[in-house]
Amino acid sequence: MAEKPSMDTVVSLCKRRGFVFQGSEIYGGIGSVWDYGPLGAELKRNLKSAWWKSVVQARDDMEGLDAAILMHPQVWKASGHVDGFADPLVDCKKCKRRFRADHLPGKGDIRRCPDCQSEINLLETPPRMFNLMLKTFLGPVEDAGSITYLRPETAQGIFVNFTNVVNSRHRKLPFGIAQIGKSFRNEITPGNFTFRTREFEQMEIEYFVKPDEAAASHERWVQERYDWYVELGIKKEKLQLRPHGAGELAHYAKACTDIEYLFPFGWSELEGIANRGDFDLRQHQEASGKELTYFDQPSNTRFLPFVIEPSGGVDRAALAFLVDAYREETVNDGTRVVLGLHKALAPFQVAVLPLLKNRPELVELARKITAGLRREFVVKYDDTASIGKLYRRQDEIGTLYCITVDVDSLQDHKVTVRDRDTMQQERIDVAQVENYLRKKLNC
Amino acid sequence: MAEKPSMDTVVSLCKRRGFVFQGSEIYGGIGSVWDYGPLGAELKRNLKSAWWKSVVQARDDMEGLDAAILMHPQVWKASGHVDGFADPLVDCKKCKRRFRADHLPGKGDIRRCPDCQSEINLLETPPRMFNLMLKTFLGPVEDAGSITYLRPETAQGIFVNFTNVVNSRHRKLPFGIAQIGKSFRNEITPGNFTFRTREFEQMEIEYFVKPDEAAASHERWVQERYDWYVELGIKKEKLQLRPHGAGELAHYAKACTDIEYLFPFGWSELEGIANRGDFDLRQHQEASGKELTYFDQPSNTRFLPFVIEPSGGVDRAALAFLVDAYREETVNDGTRVVLGLHKALAPFQVAVLPLLKNRPELVELARKITAGLRREFVVKYDDTASIGKLYRRQDEIGTLYCITVDVDSLQDHKVTVRDRDTMQQERIDVAQVENYLRKKLNC
Repeated sequence: MAEKPSMDTVVSLCKRRGFVFQGSEIYGGIGSVWDYGPLGAELKRNLKSAWWKSVVQARDDMEGLDAAILMHPQVWKASGHVDGFADPLVDCKKCKRRFRADHLPGKGDIRRCPDCQSEINLLETPPRMFNLMLKTFLGPVEDAGSITYLRPETAQGIFVNFTNVVNSRHRKLPFGIAQIGKSFRNEITPGNFTFRTREFEQMEIEYFVKPDEAAASHERWVQERYDWYVELGIKKEKLQLRPHGAGELAHYAKACTDIEYLFPFGWSELEGIANRGDFDLRQHQEASGKELTYFDQPSNTRFLPFVIEPSGGVDRAALAFLVDAYREETVNDGTRVVLGLHKALAPFQVAVLPLLKNRPELVELARKITAGLRREFVVKYDDTASIGKLYRRQDEIGTLYCITVDVDSLQDHKVTVRDRDTMQQERIDVAQVENYLRKKLNC
Repeated sequence: MAEKPSMDTVVSLCKRRGFVFQGSEIYGGIGSVWDYGPLGAELKRNLKSAWWKSVVQARDDMEGLDAAILMHPQVWKASGHVDGFADPLVDCKKCKRRFRADHLPGKGDIRRCPDCQSEINLLETPPRMFNLMLKTFLGPVEDAGSITYLRPETAQGIFVNFTNVVNSRHRKLPFGIAQIGKSFRNEITPGNFTFRTREFEQMEIEYFVKPDEAAASHERWVQERYDWYVELGIKKEKLQLRPHGAGELAHYAKACTDIEYLFPFGWSELEGIANRGDFDLRQHQEASGKELTYFDQPSNTRFLPFVIEPSGGVDRAALAFLVDAYREETVNDGTRVVLGLHKALAPFQVAVLPLLKNRPELVELARKITAGLRREFVVKYDDTASIGKLYRRQDEIGTLYCITVDVDSLQDHKVTVRDRDTMQQERIDVAQVENYLRKKLNC
């Protein structure tokens, strides 16, 4: 279980280098909310873009969607969230604090308060179900009629738009709809840094198929989603597939397989791929009174498609990529920390560094190279420290290539290009740098 | 005022072609919430990416950020939103409905209920201030202590992270922080399609400068932001700059200029560029007790920077680009609708269309070309209608080039490439198509 790096190491790097800050930190923070700093914002952008390109733009059988966080409250009634999306909570009679009953230390009905250590008898103070949806009020009157919820999952935005997408995009089965967006859950015990938070971002697919093709489609999606993480650099030995047992399945699910990553805090879910049958479309059809069936021309029949749902967390994936990419290496002058992020994910592809910042000609040439490369690459210019320090900084944030402009560059029109992983340096003609990088970075 | 196209035309195209659907439509919708369909999702992605590249990645003086929607409630106390972000509401005594007092028909204190037409005397039923922030409750107890708000602007996420960004990214003035994200306002009178909605997406910059450089920086940002819209294709005659009069400025603002677009419903704000002085950092410094000053090494002084804020709406920009790009042209066989979107914004860059879908060799070649082009471009394959219909479809959604594979293609290995705007067709070698498009589309 003592996996390297430790969470402390990762959290510390994230804050120091600007990947992740505590939300509202100057006010003492707000429970389990995190802000992505400059580098975290780029990492998340790259991750989401890699996902979108892979599951939407590279395929003929997919459409994208960007539905709102706010939905009609009946959506959550039909989906089962109003009635069933709840945790059992219990109050400690002594200290008055509130806990998830199934997480209390102790056994059976006799538990212990984790705060004041007094006994909690679940027979005397039975747990009450506490809905995990965050509620809000829309419109000028704050009453029961104006209540709605922040979506606890992006999936329902896809289901309610199923017919709109079929009609506007002339779709035939099988096809899928993909979406990235924020969701909210009032978790009672969030934690493990950005792994479980009350505000989080999902990347979800609902893939609509004929019922008799669902099982095969489910298998294919499990494999494709697993491959995606591996292609983006996650080590295979840190990934596992965990099919849910029959007792573990949600009542509507026909099958579910989790893709798990070995985080420093143990094996935990990155993404779940479920066969949801026609549960969601059927629920919404009944609740809304709108026909949500699909008309299959060849067989001249109408039916509710089955749905395969690969549902991943953006924040979890980002955390896994960070943890997995982190390594410490012994080099001549000590230890270097490298974030070996995949070239499609690294916040910066290239850094341009003048060896001496007090030589205007060097700075000018470095800035000129930066401007030129920016037409094609994500480039960072930095002259705020010595070259050794600048290299370490770029290694620690995963920048793939460092280009150093030195005094010789002014004469021979060459620069030193340093590879993040091998630390090998090559002298390259300034005029050839763009071509060189294009070959190396072409994803 | 009768600008072309009408809003009805735009709304209808958006629904028919899959740009925008009404939120939770199958449940009758939910007030002023909209979902972006497959094409709207791509348009918004492209728009946000163009902004991010322009204001973050193409510059040396900017950092990105992705702060959470949920923030500590004290943030909104310090920012002035808890006390001051409110509209005056009044109840109709007769029909019990609630309205914004300043929007009621009638004059002075004697108004009329827009619903039941009875008189509303504002002296007898004085308006009460109604806060526009959407409230929610975090944690296991729903009481005053657990209230927080959905952010009504992304800006405050930048201010509270000012010191974190300066320290982690070794920043010196002047520099800016840019962010894209959802915000929420409980507007009493939302409307004009996606122009004013309760859930919306912002793209905001806070640019930190020395106080004596603020006025010049404000001017530069007004010009740069104006140029951005023009570069992405907005017609200059539909854009205007409107500096706020002294009486119109927020109490903390030193200056503000709006960039307005001539929508079918009149001139309306796309983006505001404000000089906010040091109001925000000062408020947060006082409320949090944390030092938020900047230490200027050359002058050996500490001070609160001034802030220039270019604050734009993603949904408004998307709507302006759609409206502005829409045109109807008379062609031989009637009228064609073209969405002349800029090449950086169009949902699809290329469509590949087999002339006959019942000829497997044509379909195979078309699919092969599609797969090849996808390495570099966003490509749509479509064989679900006749070629004339397919062209019209692609014109209407702004696809820049259509590649048609016909029977001759099998012999001469050439395809027809059709330009969206000129409708000119060229025969191009299959092997040359990639190069051809690269030249045309290189943004």
